[in-house]
Amino acid sequence: MERVVKLAAKHCPFVSKADPSALRRMAGAGLIRAGARCPVVRHALPVAAATGADVSRGFKSDSKQMAMEPSLDEIHLKAGVVNTGSRTCRHADAVKAAAEAATTTPVTKKHQMPKHYASDLNGVGPATTPRFDYDTFYREELDKKHRDKSYRYFNNINRLAKEYPLAHLADPNTRVEVWCSNDYLNMGGHKKIREAMHQCIETYGGGAGGTRNIAGHNQHAVRLEKSLADLHQKPAALVFGSCYVANDATLSTLGRKLPNCIFLSDEMNHASMINGIRNSRCEKIIFKHNDLVDLEAKLASLPLNRPKIIAFESVYSMSGNVAPISEICDLAKKYGAITFLDEVHAVGMYGPRGAGVAEETPGLLSRVDIITGTLAKSYGCVGGYIAASSTLVDMIRSLAPGFIFTTSLPPHVMVGALTAVEHLKVSNVEREQQRSAVRRVKQSLSEIGIPVLSNDTHIVPAMVGDAHLAKLASDSLLHDHNIYVQSINFPTVSVGTERLRITPTPAHNTEHYVQSLTNAMNDVWSKFNINRIDGWEKRGIDVGRLCKFPVLPFTTTH
Amino acid sequence: MERVVKLAAKHCPFVSKADPSALRRMAGAGLIRAGARCPVVRHALPVAAATGADVSRGFKSDSKQMAMEPSLDEIHLKAGVVNTGSRTCRHADAVKAAAEAATTTPVTKKHQMPKHYASDLNGVGPATTPRFDYDTFYREELDKKHRDKSYRYFNNINRLAKEYPLAHLADPNTRVEVWCSNDYLNMGGHKKIREAMHQCIETYGGGAGGTRNIAGHNQHAVRLEKSLADLHQKPAALVFGSCYVANDATLSTLGRKLPNCIFLSDEMNHASMINGIRNSRCEKIIFKHNDLVDLEAKLASLPLNRPKIIAFESVYSMSGNVAPISEICDLAKKYGAITFLDEVHAVGMYGPRGAGVAEETPGLLSRVDIITGTLAKSYGCVGGYIAASSTLVDMIRSLAPGFIFTTSLPPHVMVGALTAVEHLKVSNVEREQQRSAVRRVKQSLSEIGIPVLSNDTHIVPAMVGDAHLAKLASDSLLHDHNIYVQSINFPTVSVGTERLRITPTPAHNTEHYVQSLTNAMNDVWSKFNINRIDGWEKRGIDVGRLCKFPVLPFTTTH
Repeated sequence: MERVVKLAAKHCPFVSKADPSALRRMAGAGLIRAGARCPVVRHALPVAAATGADVSRGFKSDSKQMAMEPSLDEIHLKAGVVNTGSRTCRHADAVKAAAEAATTTPVTKKHQMPKHYASDLNGVGPATTPRFDYDTFYREELDKKHRDKSYRYFNNINRLAKEYPLAHLADPNTRVEVWCSNDYLNMGGHKKIREAMHQCIETYGGGAGGTRNIAGHNQHAVRLEKSLADLHQKPAALVFGSCYVANDATLSTLGRKLPNCIFLSDEMNHASMINGIRNSRCEKIIFKHNDLVDLEAKLASLPLNRPKIIAFESVYSMSGNVAPISEICDLAKKYGAITFLDEVHAVGMYGPRGAGVAEETPGLLSRVDIITGTLAKSYGCVGGYIAASSTLVDMIRSLAPGFIFTTSLPPHVMVGALTAVEHLKVSNVEREQQRSAVRRVKQSLSEIGIPVLSNDTHIVPAMVGDAHLAKLASDSLLHDHNIYVQSINFPTVSVGTERLRITPTPAHNTEHYVQSLTNAMNDVWSKFNINRIDGWEKRGIDVGRLCKFPVLPFTTTH
Repeated sequence: MERVVKLAAKHCPFVSKADPSALRRMAGAGLIRAGARCPVVRHALPVAAATGADVSRGFKSDSKQMAMEPSLDEIHLKAGVVNTGSRTCRHADAVKAAAEAATTTPVTKKHQMPKHYASDLNGVGPATTPRFDYDTFYREELDKKHRDKSYRYFNNINRLAKEYPLAHLADPNTRVEVWCSNDYLNMGGHKKIREAMHQCIETYGGGAGGTRNIAGHNQHAVRLEKSLADLHQKPAALVFGSCYVANDATLSTLGRKLPNCIFLSDEMNHASMINGIRNSRCEKIIFKHNDLVDLEAKLASLPLNRPKIIAFESVYSMSGNVAPISEICDLAKKYGAITFLDEVHAVGMYGPRGAGVAEETPGLLSRVDIITGTLAKSYGCVGGYIAASSTLVDMIRSLAPGFIFTTSLPPHVMVGALTAVEHLKVSNVEREQQRSAVRRVKQSLSEIGIPVLSNDTHIVPAMVGDAHLAKLASDSLLHDHNIYVQSINFPTVSVGTERLRITPTPAHNTEHYVQSLTNAMNDVWSKFNINRIDGWEKRGIDVGRLCKFPVLPFTTTH
C-alpha cells in the first residue's frame, strides 16, 4: 500500500511543489479534502484506511518525514467518507440493500463533523445520517473571499459609444471617465462597425440559430475566418464564442489527442490556457516568466520525440510584459515542440496590419504554430479565434467539444468583427493616437511618483500592493473623481501585487483627460497613503520585479 | 507494483466499462497510448517498466485474465517513452546534462516507431532521435473521421430574418427552406428584438469592452439577470457567453469545491455537462436515460451525507425525450442530492411564461436547485445562464474561471435577449403556432411511413440509422429539393442511430411548407431506399427505442 501513496506523492504537482510548512498547516482535514478531489490520491485513501496504513507516510517534502495529525481514520470519520461498496448495482431490488449498506456503515458522531455536514435533517431517511448542507458550504466559500478581500463587487459601467471615454453609472445622467476598458482602440463605438451590425441584423436577425454544423455556418463565418487567416498569414482560422473558449478547447483537445503530450506553460499564463492544459489531463511543466534559460533547461530534459506544446502570451495583460517570441520559436524547433501563442492583448494594436507582436518581426508569423486572438478587445465586439495550419484547424474543428456543441456567434457580431479587423489592417490612426495617450499617461504619472511598472506596451499598471487599499483607491477614484479604474486583485494577480490597471485609448489622448487622471491619482495616493516610487525603494522592493511573482498554488491559476 | 496497476484498473471508468473483446483489440500500442493520457495509469507505466512488472496483469475484465501483446517494454520502445529523469533542473548549466540524458537514453530503432514519430529530421539535434511529426498525426486523426463517416461538412446557410423559414446559400440569390434551426420560435428575426438591438448599438456600441469585473458589468446585465431569475422563480441568475460555458463552468466549479462530490449523470446528457463533470475530476455515476429505478439504486448506494449532484436535461435535444423532473427532485431530497437541470431546449417554449418544462408542474420550479438555459435558441440571440439561490449564484460568480476571465456579452445582445425573454413571458402566439406546425409535420410524415421517434416535444427526429445514408439524404434534400435538414451523426448521436432532426417553427405552420417537406422526404427515402416504419419492423427493431442507446466509450461523450 505504501508504494501507492509514495507514488502518488511523487507525482503530485501540489505536494512536490508546496512549501513544507504550508503542508504542515494543512495537515488536518484540509489536506485530505484536497486529496479526495485528486484523481491520483483519492483512490489510495480508502484503501489506505481499509488496510490501516498511515497515509502520511507517503507525503514527504525535502526528505523530511511530515507529522500529520489527526490520523487518516479519524479524518475519514470527520469527512464522512464511508466505504459503501458497490457502484455496480443495476437492479431495482439493489436499492434496499444499498441503502442498508450506506446507512449501517459506522458513521460519525455529530460533533466530529465539519459544520456543513451537520444539518438539514428533514425527517427523511435515518435520523443518524445527516445530509450535506450545501447552502452553508456555499456561504463558507463566500466568507473566505470576503475575509481575504478577494470578493469582487461589480461596478455598473455603461460605456457610451458616442461619448468615449465616458460612461454612465446606474443613473443614466451620471458621467464617469473609463480608464480600464479592453476596448483598447474604441472600435466598439466606431461608426463603420455600428453600421455593419445594423445592416446585418436587418437582413439576418439577432442570432445564428444553431451550431456551426447545424444551421449556424454561414457566409459571415467564412469571410471572418478568411480575413483572420490572412491577418496572421496562416492557411486557416477558426472562430469560437470567446478566446477563453478558443484557448481552453484547443489546448485541451490537442493535449487529449497527442500521445503522451506534455505542456510547457509560462507561469504568468492566462486562466484560459491554464484551464485548457488542466482539462487535457496532460503533464505540464511551468517555466519561469519569459525566462529562456529556464525554458530551455526544461525542454532539454524531455525526449526529443515526445510531443510538447509551449504555451505563452505575447503581451501579458496585467503587467504589460512582452514575450521573446522569436527565441521561443528557436527553442521549439530545436527541441521538437510546437508553439501556442496567445496574442489576445496585442491583436489590432501591434504589427503593421494589427496581427500582433509576432508581426513586428519579419518572418516570425509563419514560425509560430498556433496563434490565438480575440474579437472582444481591440476589435470591439465579442468572440475569439485560432489561426494555424489547415490540418490543425480542421482537427480542432472536428474534435473540440467546446467548438462543436455550441451556438455560433450571431452573424452581425461576425460582421462587426470582420469590419474592425479589415479596418485595422489598413488604418494606423487609432494605433498612433493610442500610443500617444499611453506615453503621456506614463510620463505624467511617473512625474508625481506613482509606481508604474515599466513595459513597452499600452498597459499601465500602477502598483498598490494590497487588496483592501486597491479597492479603496478604485472606489475613491470612481466616487470622488468620476474616474473608473478597476482594482485588480487575487486571483487575477498574486497576493501582494494588487494594482490599478490603466489602459489609455485614442479617446484619452488629450491634455484634459491625462491631467484629470493624474490629479485624481495624486489625490487618492495621498488620501490612502499608498506607496509612491520612493516608498517602495525605502522598503527595499524593486516594484518592477513585483509583477513577476508567481501566484499561489491550488487556485484557479497554475 | 501489481497493486498499483490493479488499483488503477479497478477505478478506471474505461477498463471497468469497456467490452472485453474491444479491449483485446486495443491491447497493443493503442491501449498503452490511452494509458499514457490517464492520470492514474500513466504514472504506473514507467514504474512497471522499470521493475519489470507485467502491466497487463492489472487489467481484468469479467474476471477473465486478458492476453496483451506486445509486452510493456516493447510498447514503451515503440512509443518512445523514455525515462529522462529530472523535471527539477532549474539552472542554465542543467541544459547540457539534461540534453545528454535525453539523447543517450536507449532509443528506438526507426522501424519500431509509429509513423508520426519517424520524420521531421531537420538536422538539428542528434540524428538518431527524430522529432514528433505533428502534421502527420493531425492528418491521421482527420482520416479516422473520414473513414468512420463522422467528418463534418458545413453547409453555408444564411437565414433571412424577413423571409423565415427561408435562407440563402453562398449565392445570395438562392433560397432554401430551413427545417433544422434551433431558433425555434423565429425570435432572432422578430422586429422587437431587432429594434432593441439597433437602439442599444447606437448608444452603447458593439461590445462590452471587458470582463464583468473590469468595465464589462452594466445595466443590461443587471436587467437580464433579474428577468431570468424572475422567469425561473429563483432569487438570482448569472449570464455566461453560452450555455455550454454555463454548464461546464458551473458543474466543474461545484465539483472542484464540494468536498468529495460525486455526480449522477443521465447517460444522454449533452457534451457541455459531460465536459463540466469531467473537468471537475470528481467521481461520476452514469444512470440509465430517464430511468428512476436505476437512479435510485445508484443514489441509495452512496452515503447520505456525501455531496452529490444529479445532472440531467428536461428535453433531450436529439430524441425529444422529456425527463421526469418532479420524481428526480423527490429522489434528490430523499438521498441528500442537489439537482442540476438543463432546460436549454425548453426555455421559451414550455410553461405558461416559457420557463421550461419544470414550469408546467405547479411548485416544481422552486424544487429544482440549479436551472440552466440558453439565449441562443428560442430567444434568438446568443449566450447562456444559470438560475438558482443567491448564495450558489454568488459562489459561481466568484469562483468559476469560465465566468470570471472572459469578456461579457455585448450590451445589445443582452438587450435583445431580454426583449425576447420578456416578450415570451406574456405572448403565447409563437408557442401555439409552433405546436401546430409540429403536430402537422409529425402527422404528415407518419402517414408516408417515415420513422419519426415519438415524443411530446417540438423535436421531430426521423431515423435513418446509417451515417453515410443520413448525409446522402440531407444532401439530396438540400440540392434536389431546396430543403435544409442537417444529418445528425456520431458523436452527437450514437452509431446506428443517425437521423435527420426536424424542428418546425411558427413560420412553417402552413400547408405549403408541411407538404413541401413531406414530398421531399418521401422522394429521398425512396431514392436511397431508407427504411420506413415497416422496414424497421421487418428487421425486428423498435425504432422508438433506438434513441435510448448510450454512445460508445472514450469519445467526447461520457
